[in-house]
Amino acid sequence: MSVEMKLRELGLELPIPPRPLGTYNPVSQAGSLLFLSGQIPIVNGELAFAGRVGAELTVEMAQQAAILATLNVLAHIRAHLDGFDRLEEIVRVEGHISSTDGFHGQVEIMNFSSNLLVAVLGERAGHARTVFSVNQLPENAALMLVVIARIRA
Amino acid sequence: MSVEMKLRELGLELPIPPRPLGTYNPVSQAGSLLFLSGQIPIVNGELAFAGRVGAELTVEMAQQAAILATLNVLAHIRAHLDGFDRLEEIVRVEGHISSTDGFHGQVEIMNFSSNLLVAVLGERAGHARTVFSVNQLPENAALMLVVIARIRA
Amino acid sequence: MSVEMKLRELGLELPIPPRPLGTYNPVSQAGSLLFLSGQIPIVNGELAFAGRVGAELTVEMAQQAAILATLNVLAHIRAHLDGFDRLEEIVRVEGHISSTDGFHGQVEIMNFSSNLLVAVLGERAGHARTVFSVNQLPENAALMLVVIARIRA
Repeated sequence: MSVEMKLRELGLELPIPPRPLGTYNPVSQAGSLLFLSGQIPIVNGELAFAGRVGAELTVEMAQQAAILATLNVLAHIRAHLDGFDRLEEIVRVEGHISSTDGFHGQVEIMNFSSNLLVAVLGERAGHARTVFSVNQLPENAALMLVVIARIRA
Repeated sequence: MSVEMKLRELGLELPIPPRPLGTYNPVSQAGSLLFLSGQIPIVNGELAFAGRVGAELTVEMAQQAAILATLNVLAHIRAHLDGFDRLEEIVRVEGHISSTDGFHGQVEIMNFSSNLLVAVLGERAGHARTVFSVNQLPENAALMLVVIARIRA
Repeated sequence: MSVEMKLRELGLELPIPPRPLGTYNPVSQAGSLLFLSGQIPIVNGELAFAGRVGAELTVEMAQQAAILATLNVLAHIRAHLDGFDRLEEIVRVEGHISSTDGFHGQVEIMNFSSNLLVAVLGERAGHARTVFSVNQLPENAALMLVVIARIRA
């Protein structure tokens, strides 16, 4: 089953990939590695989740933000590769979660990103992962994902 | 002398590599590059150093935490490569130190990680490095190391 | 026109590349990838901009800090490659901006780094980018750049 069909089964679809906010590229390729610019939970040009977990945002809202940012990651990969056939594997996912002091539950938020990748990519999801807590993010985004992928070059 | 023998000379030994906290891999390989998931000072499944330098933790405690996290890095490399023969070089080490506002001595903490790598890997330790201060980390860990290594693929 | 000539046109010149602060390398090469250690706005061994945007530093000062750190990035690439001929592309730039709570204008600071890269490297500047807000940096630096470049190996 294709990535898009699996997303549809989950009630999800890939958005138009967000545009860069400056003179840089959304994706940079180096041999068989793709480096994606940081992705935040933007939908149709609007930030869907602003603020910090533990203050303006609940864990559940941050988990939804993680799904939206993951969809933006997938949308950029699809746009760059013209589909998912040449995607070999997600190599690394860094998750940066905007959190109040004393909130240490970032892992259960990032699991929504990892689980979505596994659900739609299967074995190609197999990433190393790092989760960070940050006291704020640019644009006041709830979280940011920084992804490296391996492709058939 | 082997890496394990050098560790023993220093009174150290490699732990069982910590298990991932979600649906991701501890190590992801892309050609000759190994991307390791973030490593914290976990020993036998328990976080050995929680809190922030400048508050609950002294610089000396954070230096011990850096050693433990570095041992976890080495343990994952050994597990993935079934030894250290195929390790060519540590390419990059990012250190994220949980610190109070106004504490700027993160470099002298990370030097314990770099020095340990040099002591046991010799020229193969030769990494680029980046040190960050963070106001907290997931699980309230004292620090986190994010490592890329180069191997004979 | 050479990179140095373009810099001169902008009234800029490359500094002596800052020395590492521990037992690590300023640049680590893995095949055709260069991983640079984090660069801060150091000039002649002195930190030119300390503190946080929104407190001790204005946006304009942080933009100058971004230019100085970018020059240090270029200086290390030139030193490692003995010029810029073998530089193929800047693959990724991570910008970490030391900021007060509630300041979310990090993007307009990092654009000074991206714009300088485009001005002097042209198409070879084409990087993926990620911008972070941090509540402080080691040595109390105003910002830090972490760069990966692709070279002709």
